[in-house]
Amino acid sequence: MSKSTGSCQGFLHYVFDYETPKTLVIPSIRVGFVFRFIQVLVALYVVGYVCVVQKAYQETDSVISTVTTKVKGFAFTNISDMELRFWDVADYIITPQGDKTFFVLTNLVMTPGQTQSRCAELPNPSTTCADDCDCIEGYNDPRGNGIRTGLCENYSSTVKTCEVLSWCPLELDTKLPKRALLAAAENFTVLIKNSITYPKFNIHKKNILPHINSSYLNTCEFSRKTDPDCPIFRLRYIVSEAGEDFQDMAVKGGVLGILIDWSCDLDWWAGKCHPKYTFRRLDNTHPFNNVAPGYNFRFAKYYKTPKGEEQRTLFKAYGIRFDVIVFGTAGKFGIVPTIVNVGAALSFLSLAPMVADWFILTCMKKRDLYSRQKVTYLVEEPEKESTSMSTTYGTQ
Amino acid sequence: MSKSTGSCQGFLHYVFDYETPKTLVIPSIRVGFVFRFIQVLVALYVVGYVCVVQKAYQETDSVISTVTTKVKGFAFTNISDMELRFWDVADYIITPQGDKTFFVLTNLVMTPGQTQSRCAELPNPSTTCADDCDCIEGYNDPRGNGIRTGLCENYSSTVKTCEVLSWCPLELDTKLPKRALLAAAENFTVLIKNSITYPKFNIHKKNILPHINSSYLNTCEFSRKTDPDCPIFRLRYIVSEAGEDFQDMAVKGGVLGILIDWSCDLDWWAGKCHPKYTFRRLDNTHPFNNVAPGYNFRFAKYYKTPKGEEQRTLFKAYGIRFDVIVFGTAGKFGIVPTIVNVGAALSFLSLAPMVADWFILTCMKKRDLYSRQKVTYLVEEPEKESTSMSTTYGTQ
Amino acid sequence: MSKSTGSCQGFLHYVFDYETPKTLVIPSIRVGFVFRFIQVLVALYVVGYVCVVQKAYQETDSVISTVTTKVKGFAFTNISDMELRFWDVADYIITPQGDKTFFVLTNLVMTPGQTQSRCAELPNPSTTCADDCDCIEGYNDPRGNGIRTGLCENYSSTVKTCEVLSWCPLELDTKLPKRALLAAAENFTVLIKNSITYPKFNIHKKNILPHINSSYLNTCEFSRKTDPDCPIFRLRYIVSEAGEDFQDMAVKGGVLGILIDWSCDLDWWAGKCHPKYTFRRLDNTHPFNNVAPGYNFRFAKYYKTPKGEEQRTLFKAYGIRFDVIVFGTAGKFGIVPTIVNVGAALSFLSLAPMVADWFILTCMKKRDLYSRQKVTYLVEEPEKESTSMSTTYGTQ
Repeated sequence: MSKSTGSCQGFLHYVFDYETPKTLVIPSIRVGFVFRFIQVLVALYVVGYVCVVQKAYQETDSVISTVTTKVKGFAFTNISDMELRFWDVADYIITPQGDKTFFVLTNLVMTPGQTQSRCAELPNPSTTCADDCDCIEGYNDPRGNGIRTGLCENYSSTVKTCEVLSWCPLELDTKLPKRALLAAAENFTVLIKNSITYPKFNIHKKNILPHINSSYLNTCEFSRKTDPDCPIFRLRYIVSEAGEDFQDMAVKGGVLGILIDWSCDLDWWAGKCHPKYTFRRLDNTHPFNNVAPGYNFRFAKYYKTPKGEEQRTLFKAYGIRFDVIVFGTAGKFGIVPTIVNVGAALSFLSLAPMVADWFILTCMKKRDLYSRQKVTYLVEEPEKESTSMSTTYGTQ
Repeated sequence: MSKSTGSCQGFLHYVFDYETPKTLVIPSIRVGFVFRFIQVLVALYVVGYVCVVQKAYQETDSVISTVTTKVKGFAFTNISDMELRFWDVADYIITPQGDKTFFVLTNLVMTPGQTQSRCAELPNPSTTCADDCDCIEGYNDPRGNGIRTGLCENYSSTVKTCEVLSWCPLELDTKLPKRALLAAAENFTVLIKNSITYPKFNIHKKNILPHINSSYLNTCEFSRKTDPDCPIFRLRYIVSEAGEDFQDMAVKGGVLGILIDWSCDLDWWAGKCHPKYTFRRLDNTHPFNNVAPGYNFRFAKYYKTPKGEEQRTLFKAYGIRFDVIVFGTAGKFGIVPTIVNVGAALSFLSLAPMVADWFILTCMKKRDLYSRQKVTYLVEEPEKESTSMSTTYGTQ
Repeated sequence: MSKSTGSCQGFLHYVFDYETPKTLVIPSIRVGFVFRFIQVLVALYVVGYVCVVQKAYQETDSVISTVTTKVKGFAFTNISDMELRFWDVADYIITPQGDKTFFVLTNLVMTPGQTQSRCAELPNPSTTCADDCDCIEGYNDPRGNGIRTGLCENYSSTVKTCEVLSWCPLELDTKLPKRALLAAAENFTVLIKNSITYPKFNIHKKNILPHINSSYLNTCEFSRKTDPDCPIFRLRYIVSEAGEDFQDMAVKGGVLGILIDWSCDLDWWAGKCHPKYTFRRLDNTHPFNNVAPGYNFRFAKYYKTPKGEEQRTLFKAYGIRFDVIVFGTAGKFGIVPTIVNVGAALSFLSLAPMVADWFILTCMKKRDLYSRQKVTYLVEEPEKESTSMSTTYGTQ
């Protein structure tokens, strides 16, 4: 252990002298096996799980998308209080703009000829009356239909109710047809055009794939098995794929999600990045806590009578709202996640010698031999400074 | 250091001989304390911060959501140029479909009876005129209201302005009521139905929680303290939670965000995954750089006169747009983030011996003793190859 | 190597005895260089790539945003079947609410005076007929315009087609003007108000920057070079920035994305967090697989005739739909990603001695010298337990 210390080349020595641990080779196949086994385990995890299954070496980006929709089809209705009537897109699509959310009218309670006037309330325990004293003028029942005028009027020949100021005649929404008015809506088709962007990777895609030509698009119809790339969907098909019956759903309405999954692996060739369509009913159908089941809303068309008086037709529209929901994550090889994952795995590799050392020094029969040759205890040389230590926990 | 090299079992030796560092045990409590302290620090960081606080062991997914809204309530107005009038949902909700964005009309400038015709411009310095020569026919002022006909007409008994071809009579939007027309809108309620999906974890949730039944839903009203799970909100409550006054906001309109936070920890039981509602005003209320303060838009209802002429009623609608914004991230235990975080912590554990070694060899009194026993310098044996080195930085 | 084992202080020794590897210093500049070079490489990667380029030390959050839009401008049309007509916002903006998606009407096929009645089908091979026998009553051709009445009527003086029950007269959408009706729409302007939130960092921002005042906003117009902060955009500018010609696009319509990138680095001062505007055409313009090119939809205005009969004006509206798409990610220094990235880099630092050791023992001329002093082989002491090993792979 004799060493002649160089005097002025200290810095070079400090920087470039390489200090390497002295090692002891133990030719035991058992220890070697434990050591290699842990290394192989870590390697398998990295290659198999991290790289192949989780693709953790990838950077990811979220999708940005635009959707336009176009519904086609027409229907006829022939019910008692309306004559034979033809319905086209302009009649039954309530958001005409072809947005990602579109509503197809399937059932209807129509109250034509409403004007701002006075009429008897719909009869229920709080509105029936015997004479005018039961009706307080100006009272405004939040569950009623208007402001009371103070009169008690005949609602029918047998029932008298308080008169209100409102849009009269009042809507009777209990008259909802049992069979959906526009049952034929199940045969309508919708063309969905969806273009997406992954801004981080500068990738732009459309759901009308490049290999599809116009003549195919004019005739095709989406089917999971035969036409999985066709962007034209029959409404009945969408609803049945969601596990619902169109005619049932059409009576009270509902919300149906058309989910387009654009999850992409951009590493190989971008052409593999295809949309996957799934369909799910989104509104609550649980019978127990289902307030206002189905999906409906009210809107009105306003007219002016020849005398200039305002008149409206109130519609309580039941129907299916289709929400096109685009989601997905694109992944592409990225140096940072790769380094992080390989680095983490390397850390686990450093566990291998720890485990193997522990195995040598506790489980092996020759542990004393190994210990004697591996571990040296500090030898106190006959110097004077070792006192503080020995007071702490005994002589060394 | 004598060693008899095995001849033909080289490969087995290469793979399974275990090479372990020779170590020196230093029984110093100070060094040991430094070493253990660093280890404990790293362990505390991993367990405490990474696992408990940040939940970095979790994989995450972003929420996908659908919203339907339904406003209830009615109001009366009684202003000079309109008689007592009843307003219901079909009148004051402009996007009737019950989308995640809905607009409640609160104030109004109405211009009835507009037709495509000619009338005198609204008076301002650039439109007033003395005679026809001041009005160039066909001139199209971007800040005006129509195309000039070239005539100078009486706007009032005192002012003459250029005549324009436009929808006449022109809108006078300075007549905005000081007190909101539909001040009663503060008592309207809105039912928000929100269903969400975390596609990666296949979790579907609704904001109407499973334990809520229909009878509760028919009577409840959201309140942060007493009814935090009720999905029915009074508009006044929403606005006041956002720190605004409903009546102030109703005059000029505004945009109000209903934020639903679906951040979920899916590790324990999914039932803990509840929506949290917050409310924030989203439009600019800063007086300094506030162009077109509030929120309003124009729309028209079109009529035909008995003669077949087109007529419209122009509405400049002021009101509150409510944007239901759903956001959130779900986290669930994932093997890759766990490995990555533990791996990174293990790396920091490898700093502990480095620091302890540095501490031994520089800070301790017995550093020379430790150094002498720990570090060996290479002893040049009397062989011939050490020349290239010595030329570089002197004799070794 | 004599050591007197302490008897009862075992635990203290176990915890606080510090075991450090014995090391050999090799004063070779070549080895030292290899070792330091790898260390510098890792350090450069961490500092340069991870920190500066990728900002991997940051936690990230996705943007939540609200948009309101307001279009201004008016136009005149003067075509054969309509007299000189004035168009304002209420006429040409179809979603009047000023949502993040707005539609500007640019071209139009108008079919006024439709009623539920009977008329001859548009002539095409499947609808022309010679007499009533060619038209099956009740037949409902999905590509036709209504339900057949069974009569064969004169469509024109030369052609006879089957009569259908429908909204008559039928729309003739081949009469689309070659030059866009509202060509003047290119001069309309749109004010976009966008407020965003990064919920994780509690950051709220608006696209109308704090230093902008109202007088500037009343006169400014967005220009990438001169006014990059002005939130008022001329439609022609938007379209030309997307690489399209407004007049071309106006004829058949299209979808145009206004992308607002709110990517933010929140570490320095939040004021640096500015929106960046880009513009892209989003609909398919590929001539090969372009079904229903452009963007159009049908809607109707409903009237009542003085006799109470329902009448409508059908519009096939062509125009440009502008989608304001807000995206972005904010990053802010986070302790977990920092630790993970530094930890991964430290792991790679642990590769440096491995490489250097391999270099010493295989590539250097003095490798035998180094090997002899660094590596010790286990010396079997004359004990009796070394038999199991030697049977496995020979004598050690």
